[in-house]
Amino acid sequence: MSKKRIGVVLCGCGKFDGSEVHESVLTLLAIDRAGHQAVCFAPNVNQYDVVDHLTGKPTGETRNALVEAARIARGQITDLAEARATDLDAVIIPGGQGAAKNLCQFNITGTDCPVHPEAARLVLECLDQGKPLGAICIAPSLLSAVLRDDDRRLKLTIGTDQSVAAKLTSMGTDHVACPVRETVVDTTYKVVSTPAYMLADNISDVAAGIEKLVAQVIELI
Amino acid sequence: MSKKRIGVVLCGCGKFDGSEVHESVLTLLAIDRAGHQAVCFAPNVNQYDVVDHLTGKPTGETRNALVEAARIARGQITDLAEARATDLDAVIIPGGQGAAKNLCQFNITGTDCPVHPEAARLVLECLDQGKPLGAICIAPSLLSAVLRDDDRRLKLTIGTDQSVAAKLTSMGTDHVACPVRETVVDTTYKVVSTPAYMLADNISDVAAGIEKLVAQVIELI
Repeated sequence: MSKKRIGVVLCGCGKFDGSEVHESVLTLLAIDRAGHQAVCFAPNVNQYDVVDHLTGKPTGETRNALVEAARIARGQITDLAEARATDLDAVIIPGGQGAAKNLCQFNITGTDCPVHPEAARLVLECLDQGKPLGAICIAPSLLSAVLRDDDRRLKLTIGTDQSVAAKLTSMGTDHVACPVRETVVDTTYKVVSTPAYMLADNISDVAAGIEKLVAQVIELI
Repeated sequence: MSKKRIGVVLCGCGKFDGSEVHESVLTLLAIDRAGHQAVCFAPNVNQYDVVDHLTGKPTGETRNALVEAARIARGQITDLAEARATDLDAVIIPGGQGAAKNLCQFNITGTDCPVHPEAARLVLECLDQGKPLGAICIAPSLLSAVLRDDDRRLKLTIGTDQSVAAKLTSMGTDHVACPVRETVVDTTYKVVSTPAYMLADNISDVAAGIEKLVAQVIELI
């Protein structure tokens, strides 16, 4: 297989206000180990909030989601507004509360949440062009929100949290419960999801689920 | 082997001003996959600087090395002042410029650099108690600086950068050139080092070196 370009959509750096750091790094590792190229993007917007990760409390600071995500991407990252599905073979979205605060606001306002317009555009481009999508941890909530008023009904997992699953269902998603080291594959729309830290209590379980997700996303290309 | 407690010394979150994110996460992954427990620490001090990782330029902000490192540790991290070698089986120090700006200031003032007192204390406790140490990327400069005025002469690598290697040599270290996926093991003092992003241009090479380092540190326990 030729070297594929796989978009990785980040949005800050940290589980409470940005992209979950372990999930993001393990996604980059799995893509590189499979012989493909990760291409990182993040929205050029201020984060919804900044949280002190030692105390779990908001700090009142202002930080930019693209600038902070550059810490994970080692500076090799581009404004999400420049991402085009036509330039990519697949797109993967790690979790962390930023995915549900910055890419969409599912963790703030629930099923009626606004979605960042560039995130919505890229997701729809992928679906329309048959480019595979991977969604990790809470990131499936973004896909559900994007397709809230769409006939396409995705099969997704956020693990086993019944309250969150019910919200995805109410947005028109078929939620499938899934253990931490496994994935749910929607072969119709080429979407793979894995629970990661929605369920995991250790990094090895997260790595196992993400390795499987990345391999399956690549198979769907 | 019973479950070992392996200290991981962080100091911020990001290659330009803190702990290198990939190296830190891959260290946590390798420890967990080996069946042992990573115990994260960072100094409770303001970082030497804060660098915009998109532009590479200092921002003038103030951030705390412990609070920012908590992003990598998912909040499970303790002030380095509370770390005791007697409570740990080994200690590993990932790289990133923070290791040479916050733990010591090798990247700022070179071979005469000051060392954070708690970092120096923990390194000396490990050496005195025969607890293995792992040092990744630029972190060997910390060990060299700690032992600058000490008879013990460590065998260490920072890869193949001759200028940096010469500085370590001038601090009394035996520098050994080493390829990116390999390690240098000092069996006398139980110290393992690997070049990681001092040499690597991809995350898989970093992972290979760190996996080897973690396995060898565990063997030395």
